[in-house]
Amino acid sequence: MADPKPNRPSPSRLLRALAGERLERPAWWLMRQAGRYLPEYRALRAKAGSFVEFCKSPALAAEATLQPVRRFGMDAAILFSDILLVAAALGQPLDYGDDGPQLAPLDPKDGLATLYRGSISALDPVYETVRLVRAALPPEVALIGFAGAPWTVATYMVEGRSSRDFIAIKTWAYSDPAGFGALIDLLVETTVAYLAGQIAAGADVVQLFDSWAGVLPEDEFARVVIAPTRAIVDRVKERFPSVPIIGFPRGAGLLYERYAAESGVDALSIDTMVPVGFARDRLASCLPLQGNLDPLALLVGGAALAEGVARIRAAFGDGAFVFNLGHGVLPQTPPEHVAALGRLLAAPSAGM
Amino acid sequence: MADPKPNRPSPSRLLRALAGERLERPAWWLMRQAGRYLPEYRALRAKAGSFVEFCKSPALAAEATLQPVRRFGMDAAILFSDILLVAAALGQPLDYGDDGPQLAPLDPKDGLATLYRGSISALDPVYETVRLVRAALPPEVALIGFAGAPWTVATYMVEGRSSRDFIAIKTWAYSDPAGFGALIDLLVETTVAYLAGQIAAGADVVQLFDSWAGVLPEDEFARVVIAPTRAIVDRVKERFPSVPIIGFPRGAGLLYERYAAESGVDALSIDTMVPVGFARDRLASCLPLQGNLDPLALLVGGAALAEGVARIRAAFGDGAFVFNLGHGVLPQTPPEHVAALGRLLAAPSAGM
Repeated sequence: MADPKPNRPSPSRLLRALAGERLERPAWWLMRQAGRYLPEYRALRAKAGSFVEFCKSPALAAEATLQPVRRFGMDAAILFSDILLVAAALGQPLDYGDDGPQLAPLDPKDGLATLYRGSISALDPVYETVRLVRAALPPEVALIGFAGAPWTVATYMVEGRSSRDFIAIKTWAYSDPAGFGALIDLLVETTVAYLAGQIAAGADVVQLFDSWAGVLPEDEFARVVIAPTRAIVDRVKERFPSVPIIGFPRGAGLLYERYAAESGVDALSIDTMVPVGFARDRLASCLPLQGNLDPLALLVGGAALAEGVARIRAAFGDGAFVFNLGHGVLPQTPPEHVAALGRLLAAPSAGM
Repeated sequence: MADPKPNRPSPSRLLRALAGERLERPAWWLMRQAGRYLPEYRALRAKAGSFVEFCKSPALAAEATLQPVRRFGMDAAILFSDILLVAAALGQPLDYGDDGPQLAPLDPKDGLATLYRGSISALDPVYETVRLVRAALPPEVALIGFAGAPWTVATYMVEGRSSRDFIAIKTWAYSDPAGFGALIDLLVETTVAYLAGQIAAGADVVQLFDSWAGVLPEDEFARVVIAPTRAIVDRVKERFPSVPIIGFPRGAGLLYERYAAESGVDALSIDTMVPVGFARDRLASCLPLQGNLDPLALLVGGAALAEGVARIRAAFGDGAFVFNLGHGVLPQTPPEHVAALGRLLAAPSAGM
């Protein structure tokens, strides 16, 4: 796909917000807006065996991507996929159990040599999903592609699963910075190709999810979160200079500001713990923001939802802003609460 | 115990640092400095059945408390105990499995009425442990008592175990703020009595561990972290005005500054993710700091340990400061790395 002409005004409210435009009502979408909380997703999911097979079945993944937009009218669809398809494409067997992803942990001594290098065709079904979704969406609904950032993907590759203390990966990173750096470099390469493939297939925006950015001291954060993100952004932008890249260093806390200044991303997704006052005063002046309702406020609904939405709109309503959660939709969320959120966002805010 | 005379100079390096004095070499102790990484602890632990029984056996718990100080010469001992003894004392059966604590989750509808109220004798063995330890320690080694802060203890009481998404407790807190507030109020009451009991038995310092402070948006953080901490501090200080209280809102990130300004604590324990530059410039001007080496740097040892220690001493060496980890010692830590840390801290810092 050729890079879109930057001078043509976009029909997409998401792209306008990410380009710095202030909208009367915020553009919105939700992380994990497709998925288990939707009965139509659960019915669709039953048509494939493993979760990985489901993600790699373009017709099924495309339908899962479209379901929430059809039901709730978000301003964007986000590709239904999983950040660990990259690990599988590099040669690590991947499975999903009740406790989340399971991989055979990569051995710091010789694991790197076992990974696949070169052009990766295992991700081709994802690009086909992107093509199917883009063809099905109206032009005013943006399609967001995504990848896990190298640090976060590496945590699963080295720990083998969700971790609490990150002992295996930090032991590797701290005791052998060069060897661990080679894994990060490989993930940078792969992620650049993966995002470029999604954009070429029709993604209008891409987001880098660094879900475990919040477990690192500053020096390591600079080395394995900011620097690889910067490398990915620079290289994707060589080919696609006008496709916005949203960064989400979840839990970065006191390091959000440095990430905003140094990572090169076009917009910043902020988690629930970022105070809105700080975000407005210190981050929104650098970059368009996206966030940051507590997924639990959406799950609970009612007054907690209405108050959370009002607080966020009051803080960010004056700038370029995309309404989202601070983390993904939880499977226990009643779909009618998402519909209520859509109605709240469609109404003029009390403060406007 | 009468409150110590404030004018007598303390022989304890920890108390001097917490009183704002700058020391040539930092005072030090480590969170979870007693425990499974020590072979002598594992031998001792085998002498009791359950972990709760062990914690409530004064002779065993006192010996566990003393072991690391004897081996490594820290400036303080910290009571060997567990933050959830309070939940057990309130009437919730408590057990420890391979995955950590297990409690029957408190029901938001009627669970509060089942909890014990009034004077709690179930915690008397802890006070006896404190007496035994204080009698065994030389005067220059301070004894630190502790409690979990109400929010963190409540997470275990309501979730029943370590949580990732905190769905049950946040659902309660968001949908029924008054009912949830009554649980927090009960925990404030109990914690005041518990800390006062430890101080009366001989604790020279107390620390409030708010291990899950980092999962809350700002308004909730103010309501269930800062306000209860302030209430506890105010009431403990009515009885023991010169006993320092250290606050540890782990993971508070961008909310550390507000906690430092509003919670009333005398000193602030900072986690690994707090950048040392920010801590020096924005927090150390308010309060003496304690922290914040990554426990993984201690586990890995060698250059990672030496560099981590040098960075922290260079940042904080000019002020009132207590060297510690940013979280607890991990069970996999080689004891010889703790000895190496002691030697590093005994040496003059390169920058001094």
